[in-house]
Amino acid sequence: MVKAALIVIGDEILSGHTLDTNSQFITAQLREINIRTVSICTVPDSVDAIQKGLETASESADIIITTGGLGPTKDDKTKKAYQHFFNDALVLDESTFAHLSEYLNRKGRAHLLEINKQQAMVLSKAKVLQNHYGTAPCMQIIENDKMYFSLPGVPYELKHLVSEQIIPLLKNHFQTNYMETRFISVVDFPESLLSQHIESWELALPQHIQLSYLPIGNRVKLKIIGSGSDKASVKKELDNEIEKLQPLIGDKVISWQGEAIEEILGELLTRKKLTIGAAESCTGGAIARLLTSVSGSSNYMKGGIVSYATSIKTSVLGVSETFIKEKNVVSEEVAMAMAQGAKKLLQTDISIATTGVAGPNTDNENNEIGKICYAIIIGNQSYTHTLFLPHLDRKDFISFVAQRVLQDVVQYVDT
Amino acid sequence: MVKAALIVIGDEILSGHTLDTNSQFITAQLREINIRTVSICTVPDSVDAIQKGLETASESADIIITTGGLGPTKDDKTKKAYQHFFNDALVLDESTFAHLSEYLNRKGRAHLLEINKQQAMVLSKAKVLQNHYGTAPCMQIIENDKMYFSLPGVPYELKHLVSEQIIPLLKNHFQTNYMETRFISVVDFPESLLSQHIESWELALPQHIQLSYLPIGNRVKLKIIGSGSDKASVKKELDNEIEKLQPLIGDKVISWQGEAIEEILGELLTRKKLTIGAAESCTGGAIARLLTSVSGSSNYMKGGIVSYATSIKTSVLGVSETFIKEKNVVSEEVAMAMAQGAKKLLQTDISIATTGVAGPNTDNENNEIGKICYAIIIGNQSYTHTLFLPHLDRKDFISFVAQRVLQDVVQYVDT
Repeated sequence: MVKAALIVIGDEILSGHTLDTNSQFITAQLREINIRTVSICTVPDSVDAIQKGLETASESADIIITTGGLGPTKDDKTKKAYQHFFNDALVLDESTFAHLSEYLNRKGRAHLLEINKQQAMVLSKAKVLQNHYGTAPCMQIIENDKMYFSLPGVPYELKHLVSEQIIPLLKNHFQTNYMETRFISVVDFPESLLSQHIESWELALPQHIQLSYLPIGNRVKLKIIGSGSDKASVKKELDNEIEKLQPLIGDKVISWQGEAIEEILGELLTRKKLTIGAAESCTGGAIARLLTSVSGSSNYMKGGIVSYATSIKTSVLGVSETFIKEKNVVSEEVAMAMAQGAKKLLQTDISIATTGVAGPNTDNENNEIGKICYAIIIGNQSYTHTLFLPHLDRKDFISFVAQRVLQDVVQYVDT
Repeated sequence: MVKAALIVIGDEILSGHTLDTNSQFITAQLREINIRTVSICTVPDSVDAIQKGLETASESADIIITTGGLGPTKDDKTKKAYQHFFNDALVLDESTFAHLSEYLNRKGRAHLLEINKQQAMVLSKAKVLQNHYGTAPCMQIIENDKMYFSLPGVPYELKHLVSEQIIPLLKNHFQTNYMETRFISVVDFPESLLSQHIESWELALPQHIQLSYLPIGNRVKLKIIGSGSDKASVKKELDNEIEKLQPLIGDKVISWQGEAIEEILGELLTRKKLTIGAAESCTGGAIARLLTSVSGSSNYMKGGIVSYATSIKTSVLGVSETFIKEKNVVSEEVAMAMAQGAKKLLQTDISIATTGVAGPNTDNENNEIGKICYAIIIGNQSYTHTLFLPHLDRKDFISFVAQRVLQDVVQYVDT
């Protein structure tokens, strides 16, 4: 198995100011060509720490990728660490300099060339992968059969370099195995009971098929990975093993394929030719955002109303003021009325509505923090629920509710 | 300086299936009590790797925190690694077992006690911090003047343990220094020019004040951190240094305080008593979600319309079909008409609208992927813009546009 190690360079990540999303992108891309990431280490913007990171990573991995620390400002230390680690000098790379001039010219920033000139200085041992979306190039260095890459930290620059240049290069160089991942989404089955229930199936799996459990809200995803040199036989073997699960947990499975709930729902709605819309209060657009995050969602997602202020529930969704006062703005009745209003306005087959208190402060009616009422209308059927989630902070509350509502829609549509 | 090292345990993170958000939460909490995180290492669900992680982390840090790998299923290896590392045995902790029984009873899951019983097995050396929101307790072990914590990986369980138990405990034990962080948001000033412009100011900063640059879209945030034993003098010193920036970059600063753009805008709108609403097409709810993510946003955010389907632009926002056909659905004119429609519907002082193509596929009118038109109305003033962002993938496109639009609103409101 070819192994990769990531070194993330950034005081900003260590201080909690920036969330590192680059690592997830890189590791997912590597996984698809069966390269296993064995470690991700975040180190400070310090020459010593980066150098030590390179040393440690080289001990266990064939591919070492650093991200960050290549910009034109003072706090960039990566190149110096590379110099020390490889005992090499920086030289001006003419083609990189030409690329940089052209890039800055095209952006109308030719006056910045002097400041950025040092970015064309690379290790003499390095091959350069040009960055078409920024000024910091990526160095590729091969030493002792190991391959090193220095990537800039800006996510979109990094993404282009990884998917367009590094992945094809690695796939070709390491001639990696084929691998296939399947996800099975199970509901109403706590992780510990589920694992007990399918224990004998799990124990009988061949060694090159791996199972793991991913609990998400009240769903558990089973992840099953097979790998091998022959694509067709891996696929067939996975299919066979998964078929054996049907009699064991078939009635609790909501999807045998999709990864995220919004993708699972997307597949389902596309297949059933159903449209959907939402009226959101406490989730503030999170459900609409989740639905529209899927490419191709315009086939089923028509739109949504974020009725954050109570007045919008009345003026846009047509829920009367007296009704809201009588029932309480956080109630299943108001959620249902909002869903009906949205269904009429957006003309969809399915309509969702949420109303609740995300916290950390209560609303004007002193409703409990963490209380959420939601309604789902599917054709003539309708459902309402109330949950209490006081243990979740504002951010987690909103994410959980959005996930949970879509999960319920999947279940109701599927039954 | 007290130093912390994080060890993140999880094949799911190394494979790119799960985004690690726990580390950001923990490091941010540690920062506030002036504990510096010197490394975050993600390792596989393997006893050896976890043990090696513990060894490496102990070399450089005073506090070692592991996250994940404590659930009741087979792929949990953390406790075994702790056993080996501390050369200790697991013993049944009676108070943890009692806590577990009570927790499962309360959740109506008493039948799971047998499966979860092993969770009450902890190292004999450990003190237990009880988990009030899940079944895996947190072990605290002190050895050779270093403090170790094993945290469960479920974000909300972890958050409660960290903020309610671990942080107060660390603050008390290590008697840490006070520290203060300031953010200054600068617009229309590329990072490299800005750094040149304030270079002499930067070089004159005392050693215990640190500066770094965080480019975000077309904004650059200056982060300035001061630390010291006396709260008042740190504050005063920071104020003095920041005051010197006023004549240098004052005209380009949109905020001297706030961290995220939605918080900056929130402060501004609250101060100016202005309300806001949005009509979103290609951003699909991302702007509403960003606005409502701020606690207290109900003071200025009234609501939004996600008009994903063209028909909703007509039926809800009142933009005529002929007008859309004539001008093109992705045009500044349609964006402006959407903003006007939303303003009328939501009765706000400020109205925003977006229309564009997030990709990866084009729309029905064959508009370019990455094209975005947006409109902002503030009272009697209005603005429209068109951007081309073909280099961003769907997810980054949506995030960038939402950030950018709010940034523009801040600028326009402020001028």
